[in-house]
Amino acid sequence: MTPSTNRQILLVEKPTGKLSPQHFRLVESAVPEPKDGEVLVRVRYISLDAANRAWMQGATYRSAVEANTVMAGGAVAEVIAAKAPGFAPGDLVFGDTGWQDYAAVPARQLVKVPRVEPMTHLLSVYGIAGLTAYFGLLRIGRPQPGETVVVSAAAGSVGSFVGQIARIKGCRVVGIAGGRAKCDWLVSELGFDAAVDYKSEPVFKALKAAAPQGIDVYFDNVGGDIFEACLPQMNLRGRIACCGAVSAYDGAPPSSGPRGVPGLIVVKRLTVQGFIVTDFNDERDAAIADLETWVKDGRIKVQEDIVDGLENTPRALIGLLAGENRGKRMVRV
Amino acid sequence: MTPSTNRQILLVEKPTGKLSPQHFRLVESAVPEPKDGEVLVRVRYISLDAANRAWMQGATYRSAVEANTVMAGGAVAEVIAAKAPGFAPGDLVFGDTGWQDYAAVPARQLVKVPRVEPMTHLLSVYGIAGLTAYFGLLRIGRPQPGETVVVSAAAGSVGSFVGQIARIKGCRVVGIAGGRAKCDWLVSELGFDAAVDYKSEPVFKALKAAAPQGIDVYFDNVGGDIFEACLPQMNLRGRIACCGAVSAYDGAPPSSGPRGVPGLIVVKRLTVQGFIVTDFNDERDAAIADLETWVKDGRIKVQEDIVDGLENTPRALIGLLAGENRGKRMVRV
Repeated sequence: MTPSTNRQILLVEKPTGKLSPQHFRLVESAVPEPKDGEVLVRVRYISLDAANRAWMQGATYRSAVEANTVMAGGAVAEVIAAKAPGFAPGDLVFGDTGWQDYAAVPARQLVKVPRVEPMTHLLSVYGIAGLTAYFGLLRIGRPQPGETVVVSAAAGSVGSFVGQIARIKGCRVVGIAGGRAKCDWLVSELGFDAAVDYKSEPVFKALKAAAPQGIDVYFDNVGGDIFEACLPQMNLRGRIACCGAVSAYDGAPPSSGPRGVPGLIVVKRLTVQGFIVTDFNDERDAAIADLETWVKDGRIKVQEDIVDGLENTPRALIGLLAGENRGKRMVRV
Repeated sequence: MTPSTNRQILLVEKPTGKLSPQHFRLVESAVPEPKDGEVLVRVRYISLDAANRAWMQGATYRSAVEANTVMAGGAVAEVIAAKAPGFAPGDLVFGDTGWQDYAAVPARQLVKVPRVEPMTHLLSVYGIAGLTAYFGLLRIGRPQPGETVVVSAAAGSVGSFVGQIARIKGCRVVGIAGGRAKCDWLVSELGFDAAVDYKSEPVFKALKAAAPQGIDVYFDNVGGDIFEACLPQMNLRGRIACCGAVSAYDGAPPSSGPRGVPGLIVVKRLTVQGFIVTDFNDERDAAIADLETWVKDGRIKVQEDIVDGLENTPRALIGLLAGENRGKRMVRV
């Protein structure tokens, strides 16, 4: 049975301030015919990431998303038809399909992924979120047993894995998250040693209490004021893994950076390093093997936040930028 | 002949704004008697460094300098009498003697240094300045042949060596310095490929022209606006060696940091790393051997700026903070 209608969500206008539903429009078009070298896929789960918003600001590690095109986004999808060797109907793939039901994607932009149960784990713990946490913490942060690791956006997809992996490695783990409920969950469910609620506590002071030995590794997902609060509390030769700057994504770019840069970087001889997950593609299989072991052992709990319906994707992203999700947010298409 | 009078320069008040001569006072006291474990030295050359001003702001990699004590400072000195094994009259040493004619210093805080000709090279190319340039550039910056290296405070003691070592390593070298005369000197005398005069040119634009392939290594001595101008011009996987932040030393601490931190650090996957020269003590002998070879070959020119008279030390430091020196500034006592 060949489907005939493809729902697509366009970014109709690039936001200059906060992202809102008006920046998107749902349209219907024909399901595309794959050209030579392309694979037609049915999108199953769309990954939502703070980076989606950053793509609207300009070129990052990928080209900028342009107005009046299908909004970009990674997804797990199923192959319907392939005009490229190595792909067959029924195969599961990961790639940038964009926000739509069907996509014809050049084969070289797709990665075949195994069928795991549940399939959603391909976007959470075995996907970009889990691997970003794994590589950012272990390769950039390089925590040693007994050290203190602080992670921001700790109840988010990456942060929740960072904290759990740091615990496995024998570290004291402090999460920074928004709201008492998230903070309680980090400690009681995920085994964090402490959590700081940036919405109700002064972060600098609360961190000082939660990390009395100072911070050896700060895994930064947010930038801005929280970066600034962590910097003076870093220990000598501490490492800051720069994973994202969500505080700067949804609105005008900040007019200045955190105080103490670069002064405190010199004095404390810090290493502040940016990375993206694909920097570590060579080590991907070994990382997934580790993550699988920990999930099976129950040492990593996988929290997913699944929103139903393609039409709800814009609101799901807007909510993610406001911090309403817990764990990995995705849309079931 | 035992000397009897010791001139000392006290820091009588910690500056809150710009450092000025009133913050210091010259006093006379008796030459101290060395206690057990101490060495009495005659100070020969006092090193002046922007870091001297940072020490007044608070604890850094050393404890803060306090008011109404002899101003701290490293110097080359000659042993007069020793109550500690391993030191004999006539030995040359380096240590923190403070700004005075004579000092009784614990032996473990002194390093014996060889007699080289001229002795001043012990404070410039074979001292902290040369070694800081060497390790900061080669171990933190890790430049590859053909890459572009940018250094700020390029006509200063560290910067002038950074640029020359980067040239030896086959890099394109751009210096940032204050004033046309310094910039011309960097290019015509020290072999820099280009120089940007931050006093007369918009730094961002001038850098863009001088480093058209972008910046692979930025050796930062100054922080502030110049750091901010370099950051967006860094190439993917660039390295920023954070050596100092002189722009923030002489006055109130800046109320914010450079724009683009940490956003651009993520996007460009930069490594921003602070260091001090003593982090590399293990490699010191090999580094000095390299530097000696390059000085003898004429591939490194050693520029020194020698001020005469202990009484002029405060003004020499104030002038250094204003950028009036070229090359390594020191005081002959």
